[in-house]
Amino acid sequence: MEPFRVHILGCGSALPTLRHFPSMQVVECRGKLFMVDCGEGAQLQMRRSGLSFTRVGHIFISHLHGDHCLGLIGMISTFGLLGRTAPLHIYAPAPLGPMLESQMQLFCADLSYEVAFHPVDTTVHQVVYEDRSLTVWSLPLDHRVPCSGYLFREKPTCPHIRPDMLEAYHIPVSQINNIKAGLDYVMPDGTVIPHQHLTTPADPPRSYAYCSDTRYMPSLAGLLQGVDLLYHEATYASDRLEMAANYYHSTASQAAAVARDAGVRQLVIGHFSSRYNQEEVLLNEALTVFPNTSLAREMAVFDV
Amino acid sequence: MEPFRVHILGCGSALPTLRHFPSMQVVECRGKLFMVDCGEGAQLQMRRSGLSFTRVGHIFISHLHGDHCLGLIGMISTFGLLGRTAPLHIYAPAPLGPMLESQMQLFCADLSYEVAFHPVDTTVHQVVYEDRSLTVWSLPLDHRVPCSGYLFREKPTCPHIRPDMLEAYHIPVSQINNIKAGLDYVMPDGTVIPHQHLTTPADPPRSYAYCSDTRYMPSLAGLLQGVDLLYHEATYASDRLEMAANYYHSTASQAAAVARDAGVRQLVIGHFSSRYNQEEVLLNEALTVFPNTSLAREMAVFDV
Repeated sequence: MEPFRVHILGCGSALPTLRHFPSMQVVECRGKLFMVDCGEGAQLQMRRSGLSFTRVGHIFISHLHGDHCLGLIGMISTFGLLGRTAPLHIYAPAPLGPMLESQMQLFCADLSYEVAFHPVDTTVHQVVYEDRSLTVWSLPLDHRVPCSGYLFREKPTCPHIRPDMLEAYHIPVSQINNIKAGLDYVMPDGTVIPHQHLTTPADPPRSYAYCSDTRYMPSLAGLLQGVDLLYHEATYASDRLEMAANYYHSTASQAAAVARDAGVRQLVIGHFSSRYNQEEVLLNEALTVFPNTSLAREMAVFDV
Repeated sequence: MEPFRVHILGCGSALPTLRHFPSMQVVECRGKLFMVDCGEGAQLQMRRSGLSFTRVGHIFISHLHGDHCLGLIGMISTFGLLGRTAPLHIYAPAPLGPMLESQMQLFCADLSYEVAFHPVDTTVHQVVYEDRSLTVWSLPLDHRVPCSGYLFREKPTCPHIRPDMLEAYHIPVSQINNIKAGLDYVMPDGTVIPHQHLTTPADPPRSYAYCSDTRYMPSLAGLLQGVDLLYHEATYASDRLEMAANYYHSTASQAAAVARDAGVRQLVIGHFSSRYNQEEVLLNEALTVFPNTSLAREMAVFDV
């Protein structure tokens, strides 16, 4: 299968610590790199990850708190220094557009490439990006400021042709796409070979959901049914339940409840408050609700 | 003597590397912390240095290239999260003022303290900050955009009183400030004790100059005569002399020539191009021109 994985570049929250960078990650899907949130230090973490700056074509920003987007102007500037020519597409709540515009005027004179800004309506669940193999959906979240998660869904693919059958029936290569598309094969003597005999089923489309930052939203589980990998913020443990609600964040148990109710395959928790020196308390809490949970950490890579 | 030292938080240049952070440092003088340039990752490096965020009252920005100022809005935001109430003073080329204003509106709603912006005229050498014991001067530099270095000069202090003499002549404590200020002491029997007998000379005022980024400016040496510690950019080695001139940067030899011609006590070079994996080539080149040269590195502390 084509690689579809998530590279965690930062999974801390707003206050700086020596354990974490602020929120940023890269979704790698079929050779393309999609950045999701872009906290301060993004260009450094990109360098550390060894991921190619050039392959980043699209950056999705969840909301306009500094720990989720202050690294953006540095990335834009560095792309320019690296001689980028391909357009860069940025998806974010609307007020970031004019801010980026004036930052670029001040800090990135004569940029060698186009920056295309796409405002995201954080109140609706809709497609914000689409290509041949992938759609990215907005996910309305419940935070202090307008905030959207992002749901990456592979499009359905064709079944796999069986090489042994091609050989057995002497099927010409020119017929492969027809068979994959669902046409039966008719042999020169008129015998019809059903296409199901010539193929193995398509890989099931995979999906990844990024949900940071948000209050506990039981309704999210509806939008996330059957998602393979869910990254959900878990800023606090349950001893700070009230604080989580007041600051529009989630506890580890709440993140795990969303994963459980959505029936996701795997949960990764992140956006840890700086108050937790030992994040195992968050992990252990989530594990009691949803067993297949991992802690995010910088440079970790999760397969979707 | 009161501490007067420079903490290097970052000494790389614009392109991200795993060896360096971009330009940023903290000048510690008599209990106050002055930040000089504030590249991306400043709040993280502040945390790493163990320096107190609260004690930073003034930030000086040399010019509006991203690698010298993109960490500023993150610092301002984090000061707010930490509950700061003391005003923060920022000294920088004028166009940063409105940019900061709109960034703060977007990212730092309800800031708990005042940010006072002081535009710096980068074309003149003049006092931009002054307190009881220190003046900070602008230093016009020759870069692609308006750019000012900063010269920190201690004010002259009083001579030190000699405790042994206080005791020998039974001088009351109330007379100490008069004697330090240069008055002779008159004993009850009318004998005059010259103040020079009662004191040891004042510590000589110390000075630190920060010069980044600039083309080689032989005239700088005039402004820097006798400076104790000079930080001068040395982006390239002499094999890139032409590139240095084209990009308005200096070579290590040129930095050392400024130090030599100004008769400074110690030179620290920094703002290294990402092309140099081994910065010893820059150090060795500078050493042939000015022997008391050191390489800057993150978390290094230099006494002035």
